Order: sequence, then structure tokens, then C-alpha cells
Amino acid sequence: MRRFVDRVSKKMGLPPGSAVHVGEHRTEPTRITIIDYDERGVREHVVSDVDACAPFLESNSVTWINVDGVHDVEIVRRLGALTGLHPLFVEDICNTTQRPKLEDEGDALFLVLKMLDADTNGDVSTEQVSLVLGRKFVVTFQEYQGDVFDAIRERIRGGKGRIRKMRADYLAYSIVDAIVDRYFLLMEQLGDRIELLEGNLVDSPGRETLATINRLKRELLFLRKSVWPLREVIDRLGRDEFTLIHKETRIYLRDVYDHAVQVIDTVSTMRDMVSGMLDIYLSSMSNRMNEVMKVLTIIATIFIPLTFIAGVYGMNFRHMPELEWHWAYPYTFWPLVLAIGGAMLFFFRRRKWL
Amino acid sequence: MRRFVDRVSKKMGLPPGSAVHVGEHRTEPTRITIIDYDERGVREHVVSDVDACAPFLESNSVTWINVDGVHDVEIVRRLGALTGLHPLFVEDICNTTQRPKLEDEGDALFLVLKMLDADTNGDVSTEQVSLVLGRKFVVTFQEYQGDVFDAIRERIRGGKGRIRKMRADYLAYSIVDAIVDRYFLLMEQLGDRIELLEGNLVDSPGRETLATINRLKRELLFLRKSVWPLREVIDRLGRDEFTLIHKETRIYLRDVYDHAVQVIDTVSTMRDMVSGMLDIYLSSMSNRMNEVMKVLTIIATIFIPLTFIAGVYGMNFRHMPELEWHWAYPYTFWPLVLAIGGAMLFFFRRRKWL
Amino acid sequence: MRRFVDRVSKKMGLPPGSAVHVGEHRTEPTRITIIDYDERGVREHVVSDVDACAPFLESNSVTWINVDGVHDVEIVRRLGALTGLHPLFVEDICNTTQRPKLEDEGDALFLVLKMLDADTNGDVSTEQVSLVLGRKFVVTFQEYQGDVFDAIRERIRGGKGRIRKMRADYLAYSIVDAIVDRYFLLMEQLGDRIELLEGNLVDSPGRETLATINRLKRELLFLRKSVWPLREVIDRLGRDEFTLIHKETRIYLRDVYDHAVQVIDTVSTMRDMVSGMLDIYLSSMSNRMNEVMKVLTIIATIFIPLTFIAGVYGMNFRHMPELEWHWAYPYTFWPLVLAIGGAMLFFFRRRKWL
Amino acid sequence: MRRFVDRVSKKMGLPPGSAVHVGEHRTEPTRITIIDYDERGVREHVVSDVDACAPFLESNSVTWINVDGVHDVEIVRRLGALTGLHPLFVEDICNTTQRPKLEDEGDALFLVLKMLDADTNGDVSTEQVSLVLGRKFVVTFQEYQGDVFDAIRERIRGGKGRIRKMRADYLAYSIVDAIVDRYFLLMEQLGDRIELLEGNLVDSPGRETLATINRLKRELLFLRKSVWPLREVIDRLGRDEFTLIHKETRIYLRDVYDHAVQVIDTVSTMRDMVSGMLDIYLSSMSNRMNEVMKVLTIIATIFIPLTFIAGVYGMNFRHMPELEWHWAYPYTFWPLVLAIGGAMLFFFRRRKWL
Amino acid sequence: MRRFVDRVSKKMGLPPGSAVHVGEHRTEPTRITIIDYDERGVREHVVSDVDACAPFLESNSVTWINVDGVHDVEIVRRLGALTGLHPLFVEDICNTTQRPKLEDEGDALFLVLKMLDADTNGDVSTEQVSLVLGRKFVVTFQEYQGDVFDAIRERIRGGKGRIRKMRADYLAYSIVDAIVDRYFLLMEQLGDRIELLEGNLVDSPGRETLATINRLKRELLFLRKSVWPLREVIDRLGRDEFTLIHKETRIYLRDVYDHAVQVIDTVSTMRDMVSGMLDIYLSSMSNRMNEVMKVLTIIATIFIPLTFIAGVYGMNFRHMPELEWHWAYPYTFWPLVLAIGGAMLFFFRRRKWL
Repeated sequence: MRRFVDRVSKKMGLPPGSAVHVGEHRTEPTRITIIDYDERGVREHVVSDVDACAPFLESNSVTWINVDGVHDVEIVRRLGALTGLHPLFVEDICNTTQRPKLEDEGDALFLVLKMLDADTNGDVSTEQVSLVLGRKFVVTFQEYQGDVFDAIRERIRGGKGRIRKMRADYLAYSIVDAIVDRYFLLMEQLGDRIELLEGNLVDSPGRETLATINRLKRELLFLRKSVWPLREVIDRLGRDEFTLIHKETRIYLRDVYDHAVQVIDTVSTMRDMVSGMLDIYLSSMSNRMNEVMKVLTIIATIFIPLTFIAGVYGMNFRHMPELEWHWAYPYTFWPLVLAIGGAMLFFFRRRKWL
Repeated sequence: MRRFVDRVSKKMGLPPGSAVHVGEHRTEPTRITIIDYDERGVREHVVSDVDACAPFLESNSVTWINVDGVHDVEIVRRLGALTGLHPLFVEDICNTTQRPKLEDEGDALFLVLKMLDADTNGDVSTEQVSLVLGRKFVVTFQEYQGDVFDAIRERIRGGKGRIRKMRADYLAYSIVDAIVDRYFLLMEQLGDRIELLEGNLVDSPGRETLATINRLKRELLFLRKSVWPLREVIDRLGRDEFTLIHKETRIYLRDVYDHAVQVIDTVSTMRDMVSGMLDIYLSSMSNRMNEVMKVLTIIATIFIPLTFIAGVYGMNFRHMPELEWHWAYPYTFWPLVLAIGGAMLFFFRRRKWL
Repeated sequence: MRRFVDRVSKKMGLPPGSAVHVGEHRTEPTRITIIDYDERGVREHVVSDVDACAPFLESNSVTWINVDGVHDVEIVRRLGALTGLHPLFVEDICNTTQRPKLEDEGDALFLVLKMLDADTNGDVSTEQVSLVLGRKFVVTFQEYQGDVFDAIRERIRGGKGRIRKMRADYLAYSIVDAIVDRYFLLMEQLGDRIELLEGNLVDSPGRETLATINRLKRELLFLRKSVWPLREVIDRLGRDEFTLIHKETRIYLRDVYDHAVQVIDTVSTMRDMVSGMLDIYLSSMSNRMNEVMKVLTIIATIFIPLTFIAGVYGMNFRHMPELEWHWAYPYTFWPLVLAIGGAMLFFFRRRKWL
Repeated sequence: MRRFVDRVSKKMGLPPGSAVHVGEHRTEPTRITIIDYDERGVREHVVSDVDACAPFLESNSVTWINVDGVHDVEIVRRLGALTGLHPLFVEDICNTTQRPKLEDEGDALFLVLKMLDADTNGDVSTEQVSLVLGRKFVVTFQEYQGDVFDAIRERIRGGKGRIRKMRADYLAYSIVDAIVDRYFLLMEQLGDRIELLEGNLVDSPGRETLATINRLKRELLFLRKSVWPLREVIDRLGRDEFTLIHKETRIYLRDVYDHAVQVIDTVSTMRDMVSGMLDIYLSSMSNRMNEVMKVLTIIATIFIPLTFIAGVYGMNFRHMPELEWHWAYPYTFWPLVLAIGGAMLFFFRRRKWL
Repeated sequence: MRRFVDRVSKKMGLPPGSAVHVGEHRTEPTRITIIDYDERGVREHVVSDVDACAPFLESNSVTWINVDGVHDVEIVRRLGALTGLHPLFVEDICNTTQRPKLEDEGDALFLVLKMLDADTNGDVSTEQVSLVLGRKFVVTFQEYQGDVFDAIRERIRGGKGRIRKMRADYLAYSIVDAIVDRYFLLMEQLGDRIELLEGNLVDSPGRETLATINRLKRELLFLRKSVWPLREVIDRLGRDEFTLIHKETRIYLRDVYDHAVQVIDTVSTMRDMVSGMLDIYLSSMSNRMNEVMKVLTIIATIFIPLTFIAGVYGMNFRHMPELEWHWAYPYTFWPLVLAIGGAMLFFFRRRKWL
């Protein structure tokens, strides 16, 4: 539930632009890492003071400042001030329940994105990544340490690919691309769970099957809620005439846009499949009921009339001629019983109940 | 029901622009409060006469006139005349069943908004807030005293934040923002109720579960009906080129627009979740039926044939050889009964009914 | 059904523009009333001859010609010729199964609208109102006498409000407004019926509940079918640059457009609510089944084993030692019966069936 | 099924523009009729050779060439060549599974339309009508002889209405109008069937009710599939600036467009109604089940305990004091039975089962 | 499942533009065939070295290079380099999970398409076809040898139709057309399966019916997922002003676009039909249950009261006067039994249970 309804009550009544951390309570110190690179080389720093970032932002090389943890509002505010960010966006960075968005500030673009992950139960969890793209820098804010950006760092360090030759917009693209790629991994995990569920549905449907179907449905609801605004953001990024995004980067953004659309397609297909499973589950329930009822009906329908006959010959009427016949029991009663039972069985067979 | 179908019959046949109070009947006197402020200071007044507002409207400072109660149609009409409001909009203010709307009058903008609240039962109730935004003033009309605007008043008084430095459009934004923030609180309450319901659904589903599901569904219907037109209004406010809305305010309006979209997202997610709960409820009902039927079937299927056998040996045929055997009862009848019963139990176990 | 599928077979094969009356068969004479007014005064006439209308149409004052009854095709055709109406629109006026539409003829606008009413059963019925708006006149065609326009006539006569000061387009607006206002009344009636149904659903659901749900569903289908094209027509009327619609009237048209949207909102909300009721009805049906099954199961499960025991001691085996014990009946048989019955009841209680 | 999935396999692999007849196999000779008219007179011809059409096409009068049967591909191809039709469109004419479409060739418009009919079972069948509109001619291709165009021919012959005074585009309009009018007739037939079904649903729902509901559903699916693209075609015809369509014809095309929209409205309303019927059918099924269960439960619940009592007094315990009392049978046993039975009946009545 | 969720994990973390083969593992050598043609003649080559393609690409004739197998990434990369393809698109070619797309590179168009096929089980499988269209060449990449393009090759060789007279864009169109035609074949196969299923549904619905319905649903889901983006690609191809697509080809592209829309229509119709079948299946299940219950109820309701009566006369009360009457058994007991049984049967018949 937590993930669906955002708890923002502690912000109520504060003036707009008031940066307040909304999200899981955290205390560890915020970590700021700087990667500064151009075609000739790479310089990496871990700084503890925001002011140490200033010279990098002004240098001609591309600077990537990454902040792990947005609970220290002061650090976010000061970095925002350094990069000329509107207070409203500083507020957005600290509020981890923000919806993915894209804002143009003329000399900077501000993005909020959602990075998805699955915990050990397979439940999808989310981490907010905010990104400020300037002419010569990218600043990223994450909630937790550890991320999917290590591959990008390696590429920058190794100088492989084109990343060192490109500008800051390409770095921003690379980050967005890494986030969207993460969705595919999640998709695969969900796909595996759906496949598993499908097997169970046929072999041994039970109460927990319904619970699993429902949990999958909610994960997919949650995913859809995250990925639709993401798609919008990427679409505008690749389409609109932001001067910060160069023509050669736009082709990459259209590519990552295609990926986002593919995720949406897959989510909607999965939703249809899981809905189909619910139908199957319900109809297998009613099949079972049918079977139970058939067994009851067959047994009762055969034996209730027979019990009546036995009851008749258990009556104490003084004058019941049949009872007096010597061979009545073996040669009349039992043949009658077998005939009635056999006729019933024949009737059930013809109706394909047996 | 009241909340879904608006009672407007008493207005039928009146000429357009006839201000008639439509809504809950009220008698307390209307209260007019004026807050007049600029960067240097704040002046607050409670006036009883509409004419006392005139000088404030003409002053160079920003003037916020708040009217509590729209049942005194005369007061609304005279204030409307003072601010140059079209009679049609005076009518809208008094008709509390109005749909959220935005009208441009050139030198003023007219907004109708819905403020939501939840009563002690958790049912959502609504209060209409109308707002007239002029170049130097904001006039707000509410149905009841007491509102979510106190935080704004405090900010104006304290001079904190930027509100005292900004113009009337920023004040209008602040009011809209406070209204939308209120939706989030409601969202949280609904979220808590859904969570509670989910627990009950698993632990002890019953008749009242269905009633709760249905009530939640209706609250969400009601919310959706309110928030969609609100979103539209805010979208136009931040997007269209109204000369009354300055560029520096528009960024705030886009922010509050994002919040409205987030509310819509959450409402639609909640609707999907509540629908899913109905499925679970229904399938748990049919599960229960299955269980009941199984118990009946097991008992009946075991004992009906046995009763037949007992009936057979209760018959009064003169010649039934089995009855004469000395040990027939303990060593033939009971083993037969146990064998049949055991076979049945084995059959049920194999079918996984036990 | 009649109302959903329009019977137009008698028009098949006629050339376009052939005016044929399609609708309920009627014979009473057509009534033509003329109201001619300007700021200074009002003149009213009831004429029997179409030609008598001609001088009014040419006068400088605003002329409203109202025709009650479109079954006399000749009268419609001649009035159409007088006002320069295209033959195709004359055909539309006579065909009362026409969809709401708006056509621009340059010097005249042609509108078809649907006026709704509820009969004593609460079933929605419809009356077609066609309207020709010229520079200085409005001609309206109705199917039956008696309408919702009396309030407008009173306003014209009394000279209250602005109607006498405005031009023909304002009169056309007033007529559209009266029609849309009528929808709200209908909405209230439907709302009352839904409320009533809701009570029944809880207290005493039965077969007629389902029938009522279905009838409400159909009324709402019918309403939706009428109100959507109406909304479109009003939207175009207020938006498009028809030279016949003056700027000061357009604000009124936007207002009535808001009302139409509100009707659509309410219809769609009601549809959702009635659908929800169907769910409740069905699940209450299955609840009842559950209850019936439980009673059967409890009785059968308790007494079937007991009957077996009674059957056993009714057997006629020569040697059944229990039967010989003197106190077997009161001190063995009955305690056994009570023990088994009690165990069963305990089992049912634990399963919460009792 | 045939009607839903088009069999085009025999066209696979052929170059585009290869005219191959796809549709029901037919052998009768193709019939070509020519109607050539202007304001002064009408000339009709039945020709067997395509070349005989050439002089008519070049004359200044309006020429309508109608071809009955498209299975003789050669004739279609040569007529196509005469009128300057693109080979792709010749292919479309012969392929009777074509979707309704409109293509502009500059000096000619090419239309594919679907004419609907209902066979004796009420099943909807379809006939493809292709139409080539040139400046001075209309060529129509039908699958079968006999059509709904006879009324148009009569109008041309009689010189009534405006058809003889108008140009070829008006003839094309008349043909489209006749086709759309045919839909209304079909609508009425379907409406009658739905009405009939509704009666049955209440009086005597059975297995065939479900089959009928399903068949109606499919007919409506089929209709929707045909009418949507038709609407599109007519919309473009009346809206776009095709030089071949004159301004005075466009008003007629908008009229027929309105009719197409009305058909769509009715189809969608009918779909909703038929869906509602399925709900009623299913819930009446479950009502019946409820009733069956109630009867069983009442009988079983009354008699099972009584049978137990009878069983008790049929036991052969040596010492059962009740059996010895002289009046036990009439004054103890029967009152007990009646008391238990009466209590049960009272219980059922209170639960409203009786 | 495999087909719904694309396995791309091995690409995670690689820089964009890294060509990695994603898809079924394959080892056979890649085959490159060249067809070079103009109006005068055709030259065909099978080459093993990519460099051998270069002269053809530069010649004035139209060159079609077809590559069977995209698992040899090196070959794809070098061919991409030869044709000036962006590395991102080389990546797309090798990743066979790509969504259909269209990219404009100015002097070349890049298309990804999906060719569908059905395996022997009728399950739909997919093969990715990528296409690069230059001014004078078309390069196609397929996953497997053997395709639906042989008919095109034959047409080129034979010089029939217009293909040899047209430019490269017409060749590209022919390839797209062949792919879309393949969808129709698939449609027919699915149509046959639906027809078969329909028969089974009526004759002998069983567990496997539900499984078949579900499998059909999934195939249709899969198809829809493939055909929607295809439609988009073809729409843009025929509509947008790509300088590579000449006016005379555009009419063909609109034709193939119509076909794609027809496929979509058919898929959506089929989905509706299969959904309808699920309804029928479920309601036939509940019909069966009804029947089973009726049989049980009839038998039990007739015999349970009779058994009670037999039980009564089996009681051992000392004084039961009926038992003493000489003719009580044949003339009182049996008539009573027959009367009760007959009354029950009459009751059931009146309720239409028999």
C-alpha cells in the first residue's frame, strides 16, 4: 500500500519551495562523487563539502556530480543553488514521492525519474533519481548508494565507446538509458513469475494461486504507474527543441524512447495475461465444484431409492405377501436393487457424468 | 447520492445570471475578511459591509478578500459588481453544485474549485471555493468558515517565503496549491481504509466487506469526478497566455498541475485495486461454497450407502440367511461398513478433498 | 426498444430532401405562435397561415416563431422556404429520429436538439426541437404542444433580465439553456430512483431488483446517446466563429456547455453506480445460495450419520449383543447420538458456519 | 466465420496490382448497364462489350455505368483502363474482401463500400460496391445483380427531384446515401430481434436464448466492423477539398455522414443492450439454481430429522420403554413429527424461502 | 512466455550502439545474396565477403542485398558501415527483440519489421526483418533462411509487373507488402482454429476447451502486439515526406497500410469473438451444474419423504393400528407412495424441471 499512496502529510501547509525530505527515514551521511572528463582524461573525486564542486561546474570538461542520499536537505539546497536550480525543484528532489517530470529552465533541464528494483520476494521497489543537465555538467541525486550507473563510470574511465567524445547531454542520455534498461531486467523477473504461476494454475490451483495472481496484478499496476510518465519525459526530451540536447544525441533518445514503449507494451500484455489467468482460476474453481456435485449426485441418486426399497421391506405391516415368499430376498430383492443401480449408472454414463 | 446528483430544480426557469443559492441551507451571517499586503507590511480587517472593500481593491498593494458563506446572495452580487464580475459568474458562485471551471474576463480570471474533506465516517464531502483574480486582488468565496488557507495567512503575516514579494497571481496559486494539497491528505485516508480492508479480506471476509468495497468505490468515483475538471483548470492556468499570470508564477502552476496529475494517477490505481478486491471477495465466496459442498458430499457419500446396508438387514423377509449366521453382525456387517467407509475416505484423499 | 432503433423504413428510396413525417402518428392541427419583441415592446400572435409570418421575419425586431407539431409537412416546408432553409433541413425537421446536429447556412444556423422528459413510470421519453436562427428571427419546431419555454416567454413579456435588450442569438441561447436545464430535472428523478433501488438492494433484493437495475441501465444508455451529440452542438455553437453568434452571447453558451458536460459527468457516474449495484446484487444472490447450502449441509451432516446408527440397531441379525443389554437404549444409544450431534455442531461453530 | 476472416490466400505472392477475383465463386455473365442523362433526357443501354462504354464516358452528359459481377476480371480491368484507374484499384474491385476506402486520383475518386443485407435467418451478409467518380461519370461495380439503386434509377428516369440537374458527384452521393439507408433497414430488423429476445429472456430463458444472444453479438460485431470505415470514408468525402465534389453536394454528404454516425450510435447502444441481456441471462440461471437448491434443502431439512426419529423407533433394543406405551404412536410420535415439521416450515418462512 | 518478455539481460551495461546478438542461439554461416537489376537485366550473386557488396551499392542499378542470419555481428556491422548506418541501428538489427520502428537518416531509411509464422501447433512465431533503404539499394536482414520474398525474386527475374521499372523504394514496398500478406495467411489459420473451437464448444465442451480458448487469446495478444507498431511504421512511410519515397510508390504504401488496418480490425474482431466464447463456456458450465443439481433434487425430493413413510411403518411401537389392517400394505401404503411421488413429478413438470 505504502507504494501506492504517497505520504506527504508532513509537508502540508509549508510554503512552496520548502525542501523537506519525504521518504524512508535515513541517517547515514550523504556522499558526493565527482567525475570530470573530456576526450583527454578523467578525474574522480569524493568530496564532503558542496562548495568543492563549484570549480568543476565551471570547467570546460564534462562534470558528473552524483549525490547518494537526499535526506540531508541542506546539501541538496546548496548544490541546487550552485547550479542555479529553482527552489521548487530542490523541493522535488527531496520529496521522493515525486512523479517523473521534465522541466526546462533555459540553461538547465531538470528531470525526475524512477529507478525500479525487485526485492527478494519479487516485489517491485522504487528509487527516485533526479537529474540536472547543464551545458557542461550533469548532477544526479539518488536515494541510496549503489546503482546501475557503474557501467557508465567504467565506460568513462576506459574511454571506450563515444561517451568521452560527447557532451553532457550524452551523459544524461546514458543515465536515462541505464534506468530504462533496468526495467527490462524487472520485466524478465516478472515474466518468470508469470510462467511459474501458469504451471501452478494447471497442476495445483489453490488459495495461494489467487493471492499470487493478485500480487502480480499489483506489481504490474505499480509498474504501469511508473513507466507511463517516464515515457512522456523521454518523448519530450528527444522531440522538443531543447537547445541543451544536440541533434546527434536525439537519435539515442529516440532509441531509449522505443525501449520505454516496449516496456509499456510488455506491461500491458502481461496485464492481459494475468487477467486471463484469473478467468482460468475461477473457471477451474467452478469445475471442481461441478465434480464435487457430480459425485454427491451419483451416490445419492443411486442409494436413496434403494434405501427406500429396503425401508419398505423393513415395515411391520402384518400382511406383506412378498415377505413370506421363500426366495424373495435373494431372487427378487437383490435383482431389483441391481437393476435400479445399473439403470442409474447407465443414465449417468449416457449423460457423460462418469 | 446527494453528492452525485445536484439538486438544482429551484433554479429552473429563472433567467441566466439570476444568483440563487443552491446548496445546504444556511443562516449564519456571512463573514468578510480582508488581508492587504505588500513587501512592507500587512493589514487585516473584518468588515460587515461590502462597500468597505472598495478602497482596498483600488490600492496598489495585493488585497485578498475572503467571504465565508455564499448563501447571502446579495453580498456576493455586490462584491461581484465591485470587481466587475459577469452576472453569470455571480450565479456560479452561489450555485454550490458548479463544476470546476476557469473563465477569462480579460482583466480578471474567474475560477471555481472544489475543496474536499472527509467526515468522521471517512466519507468524502465537498466545499466549493470560487476565486476571482484581478491585477491587484484575489477574492475568494467559501461555503463554510474554517479552511486550509490559514497556513497561507500565516506566511503572509510572517513575511516568510516569497509570497509578500510576489503579485496577486502568486496568491491565487498559493490558494490552488493548498486545495490540491488537501487532496493528498484525503488520498492517505483512503489509502489507510483500503489497507484495512485488505487485511479484513484475508482474515474474515463477510457481508460488511462487500459494503465497504462498494463504499470505497463510490468515494473514488466521487473523487475522480472532482479531480478531472480541476486538473483541466490548472492545466489551462499554467499553459495559456493569460496576461494576469506572470511567467515566474507559471512554473509554480506547472508544479501544482503535476500534483493534480499525481492525484489522478493514485485515484485510478486505487480504483484498480478496489476492483481487484471485489474479485478476491467473490472468489473467496465461491471457495467457501466449495468447502461447504465438500463437507456435505463427504458425509453423505460415506453414510448413504452404509444406511442402505443397514436398511437391508433391517428388512423382514422371512428367509434372509445372513441374519441367521451367529457371527454375521460383528464379523461380517461391521467389516463391510469399515471397508466401504475406508474406501470412500481413500477416494476423497486421492482427489485431494481431505 | 422503439426509442433505440429509429423506424425510418417509410423514407427508403425517396430522393434526399423529401420531407416525410417520421415519428408518432398525429392528427391535431399545427399551431403557429409568433412573439415579436424589441426593447420597447412585445407583440404576440397565433396565426393559422404560414404566409402571415413573412412580415414579422422582415421586421427589425426579434421574431420568435414557434411551431407545435411537425406532422403537417406542408407547413414545415413553407416556413422553411420563407426562411431560406435547405430542403435537406426541412426533411430533418420532419424526421423526429434525427440526431442532434448543427449546420451553418451562412445567413442562418440550423440546430436539431432533443428535449427529454420522464413519463409517469420514470421512463425517459424524447421530443425533437429544431431551431433556425437567423439574423433577426428564431424559428422553433416542436413535436407536441406544451414545453419548457414558457419561462422564456414570461421573461420576454415581463421585460425582466436582459433578453429584450439582446438579439436573436440570445433568444436561441435561452432556448438551448431551457432544454439543458430540463436534463437536470431528469437527472434528479433518476437519482431518486437509484437511491430507492439502493435501499431495496440491501433490504429485500429480488427478481424485480434485477429488472429495475436493467431498466435504469437502459435509461442511462438512452440519455448518454442523447446528451453526447448535444454537447458537441453546444460546443461548436460557443466556439466556432459563426457570425450570427455575438461575442456577448458566447459567454452564455460556454456556461450552458458547462452544464451539458456536468450532465455527461453525472450520467457516467450513475452508470458506474448502477454497474456496481449489479455486482452487489449478484454477490448477494451467491451469498444466499451459500446460506441455503449451509443449512442443508448442517442438517444433513448431523442427521445422516445418526440415521445410519438407528438403522444399524434396527437390523434383524439374530445375534446382536448390544440389543440385549437392558440399559443400552437410554444409556448407550442416546449418549452416542448426542455426542455425535454435539461434535458436529462444534465443528460447524469452529468453521464459523453457525 | 467466413465473414470475419477474409480468404485471400490465392492472392499470396502475386505482384501488386494483379487483379484476381476473391470472393464467392460465380459463373454467370457480367452485366453492364449504362444510364446517360442530363437535364433534357435519359438514355439507357445494356452492353456486352466494354468498349461500347467509351463514347458515353466522353460525352458531356452524366454517365452511370453499373457492372453486376466482378468475377470476370478482364471486364473490370478494361473498364478500369478506360476510366484511367490505377491497377491497384482494379485489384481492389475484384477482391471482395476489401475494407471500405477512399482514394483520390486527382481526376477521379475511387471508393470501396459495403452494402449490407440480412438473409432469411436474419444473418447479416455483405456485398462490396466499388465506385469510380470522374468529372462526368460514375462507374459502380457490384457482386450480384439486384440492388438498392433502383429508386435512384427511377428518380433519374422520372426527372423528379434535383438529380437530373446536378452533376456526377450528386449521383455518387445518391448511391452512398442509398447504401447507408439500407443500414437503417438492417438496424430495424436487428432491433426487432433484440425485442423478441428480450421477451423470451423474461418468459422462458433457455439454452437457445444464450445462442441467440451470441449470434446477435456477432452480427453487431460484424456491423461495427463494416460501418466504422464507411463513416471515415464519408467524412473525408464531405470534408476534404476534393475538386470533384462541389460545394452544393457537400451539404448532402454531411447529411449522409450524420446518418452513418447515427448507425454507429445505434450499433453501440445495441451492443450495450445485448451485453446487459447476457448479464440477465446469467443471473436468471443462478436464480434458478437458487430455487432448485431451496426446494432440495426444504424437503431434505424437514424429512431427514424425521426419518431419523422413525429410524430410532424402528430399532430392536430389547428395552425401549416408549414403544410399550399404548398411545405413544398416535399421541407422542405424530405430534413430535408435526412439531418438528412445523418448526422447520416456520424457520423457512421467516428466512423468506417460502 | 518467451515470446512476450524479451530476454535482453546480456546486453545490460554495454554502451549504446554495441551490437550483440540477442535471440535464439545459432551457428550456421551467414548467407549474403545480391540481386542487382534495372530495366534491362538482372544479375544475382551469392557472396561470402561483405566487401564484395560495395561495387553493387555504388552502381546505378537497384541492388538488393539480403542477409540470412544476424548472429554473426561482425558481418552486420561491416554491412552497416558500408551503407552508412548509425551504430545504434546495427545494434537494433542484431537484437531480434526489437519493436517495429522506422528511422530516417536523411540519405537512408531504416526499418525493423516482424514477419510472423505459425508452427505446426498453430502457435505464432516471429522473425525479425530489418531493412535499409537507400537511394539505389535495399539491404534486408533476416534471422533464418527461407522467407516469403521468393515471389518478389521471381518477379524481378521474370521482369513481369512493374518492379524492374521502378526504383529501390518500390522494392522496399514489395518486401513490406509480402510481410503483411503473410499476416493474412496467419489470420486464416487462426480463423480456422476459432471455427473448430466453436464447433467443440457446442458439441462437447470440456477442460481442453478452456485451454484452447486461452491459447487463442494469447496468440491474438501476441499478434496485436506485433501489428500495431507495424501499422504505425507503414503509415509514416506512406504519409511523411521522406524524399526517398517517390509519389508513385506512395499509393502502393497506402494500399499496404489499408491491409495492415484490416489485419488489426480482424484481430480485434477475433478477440471479441474469443471473449464471447469464454462467456459461453462459463455459462455452459453453470448450465451443467444446474442440470446435475436438478437430477439430485428430483430424486432426493421424491424419495426422502417416501423413505420417511417406510421408516414410520418400520417402527416397533406396540400399538400401531394401521399395521394390523389386513389390506393396509397393498391398498393404503402403496397408493400413498404413488400419490406422493406423482404429486412431486407434477410439481417438477410445472416448474419445467423435467
